[in-house]
Amino acid sequence: MIIDRLIEKINETGNPTVVGLDPRMSFIPEYIKKECFEKYGETPKAVAESFFMFNKEIIDATYDLIPAVKPQVAMYEMLGTDGFESYINTIKYAKEKGLVIIGDIKRGDIASTAENYSDGHIGKVKAGSREFEIYHEDFITINPYMGQDSVEPYFENCKNYEKGLFVLVKTSNKGSGQLQDLMVEGGKTLYETVGGLVSDWGNDFIGKYGYSSIGAVVGATHPEQARKLRELMPHTFFLVPGYGAQGGTAEDLSVCFDKNGLGAIVNSSRGIIAAYKKDIYKDKFSEKEFAQASRQAVLDMKADLRRCI
Amino acid sequence: MIIDRLIEKINETGNPTVVGLDPRMSFIPEYIKKECFEKYGETPKAVAESFFMFNKEIIDATYDLIPAVKPQVAMYEMLGTDGFESYINTIKYAKEKGLVIIGDIKRGDIASTAENYSDGHIGKVKAGSREFEIYHEDFITINPYMGQDSVEPYFENCKNYEKGLFVLVKTSNKGSGQLQDLMVEGGKTLYETVGGLVSDWGNDFIGKYGYSSIGAVVGATHPEQARKLRELMPHTFFLVPGYGAQGGTAEDLSVCFDKNGLGAIVNSSRGIIAAYKKDIYKDKFSEKEFAQASRQAVLDMKADLRRCI
Repeated sequence: MIIDRLIEKINETGNPTVVGLDPRMSFIPEYIKKECFEKYGETPKAVAESFFMFNKEIIDATYDLIPAVKPQVAMYEMLGTDGFESYINTIKYAKEKGLVIIGDIKRGDIASTAENYSDGHIGKVKAGSREFEIYHEDFITINPYMGQDSVEPYFENCKNYEKGLFVLVKTSNKGSGQLQDLMVEGGKTLYETVGGLVSDWGNDFIGKYGYSSIGAVVGATHPEQARKLRELMPHTFFLVPGYGAQGGTAEDLSVCFDKNGLGAIVNSSRGIIAAYKKDIYKDKFSEKEFAQASRQAVLDMKADLRRCI
Repeated sequence: MIIDRLIEKINETGNPTVVGLDPRMSFIPEYIKKECFEKYGETPKAVAESFFMFNKEIIDATYDLIPAVKPQVAMYEMLGTDGFESYINTIKYAKEKGLVIIGDIKRGDIASTAENYSDGHIGKVKAGSREFEIYHEDFITINPYMGQDSVEPYFENCKNYEKGLFVLVKTSNKGSGQLQDLMVEGGKTLYETVGGLVSDWGNDFIGKYGYSSIGAVVGATHPEQARKLRELMPHTFFLVPGYGAQGGTAEDLSVCFDKNGLGAIVNSSRGIIAAYKKDIYKDKFSEKEFAQASRQAVLDMKADLRRCI
């Protein structure tokens, strides 16, 4: 079960942090940009290549401290085919370093189409008599708006290839409540209703530590709702975005963890990958030392989380 | 306004049909597969190239009869970078033939990430001092589960580049009701609530025919719900999936149109692109004539729709 591997990596590192590999041009040091523009001109290929070089240095500087990385596919998808090459290269490189990969793709479609997403991202794709693994993620994020029949096509690949899902339940954005917090029939909110479904879907995927490979996305920015969901979904592992830049604190998200300090992994993206631009690090680390600043930010985040869980 | 161009194309062709370019290996004629496997081996590249060759022939055989095509990105995404090349080439080719492009991508994410999807798909992407258009769609489909702040980042590109959206409201899959039909506070269902939001979002994008460039996905398979939405959303254009293979009939979806026979565009994917495999066409058209079978299927669908609207 992939959830067991994730939990073991969290225990080994003592750090329930996932580094969000969401590069943006404004984060990339000048010397990397320069090298890529000189090599490929001012092209999407150059941007994509600079993202990969940036990610590689961050992975090198942090892989011994963290269990997982979560590349956000939008940053790469934006760049077309070159971006996807960078996305896949990033995943392969992080895998070589032993990291668990959470592909933040938030896909969702009717069953016959979901099969294609499923095969591409967490299964295998046929070409004649041969089979290929394309994206190499361990987990992917999924949007539940279309209902259970749009999620089921991922289950078979989860079984066959030891993969997992994090289904959007209560997202970290400010406006998430507009639909997710609505009271629906049965006296629950929409996010609780979705939470209940995700918990049920996970029953066939529970590993040796009591958590399921079918997890939930629960934002750090909504502690009251997260507390409710932790009670409602005792076997569901949480992927928790919203720490740091989006405003969620370690205190806020402490409710996502169980009494043994397990049950969640907390994402930070720009707070780690662009640490060298932050006031607290920029005097200590030059632009060339951006990856060392990221390492320090991981250590600081780990200490911050461990203070509260 | 892109919605005006879509409506004008519908009026010119007298045909509110969008051809879903959702290729699958089982649809591709043997001679195309053979050519691609000989050229590229049994690889994702060969599959992706066969999809493009297949799409090209279908576009050539139907572009004068239809206003738009809707490639489903999952079929291409499944194949990695080669798949996205095929997706983009398909879009560019269809554009050269004057077709409106609806990219069926169903993306949805927090605002700072949605900006990347928006720029990549319907805006422009910066590389140094240069700007690039990457995917070239005219419309894209969007998932609303994360709320208004996850949809707003698309509006600016819609304004600046004359693009449009179709937001998922009531989807065509059997299980769509599990969440979408739930009664929520205010005495409405979730899909009606989302419908109301989409209608509001569209107010700044209403074109000269009274319809907005911010449209809604409303499945042909749920006529009662579609009828309600048509009343609730008089200025919202509907993208209607579910006709044919998914079970929706022309009678079912007739409620999506207004009294002037406008207001919706109906998708058919395998019913058109794999027509040559259907009993009613396979005696008349050989495998090599698959695109002519698609042309006949478009004509038959047009007649079927016009019977009811």
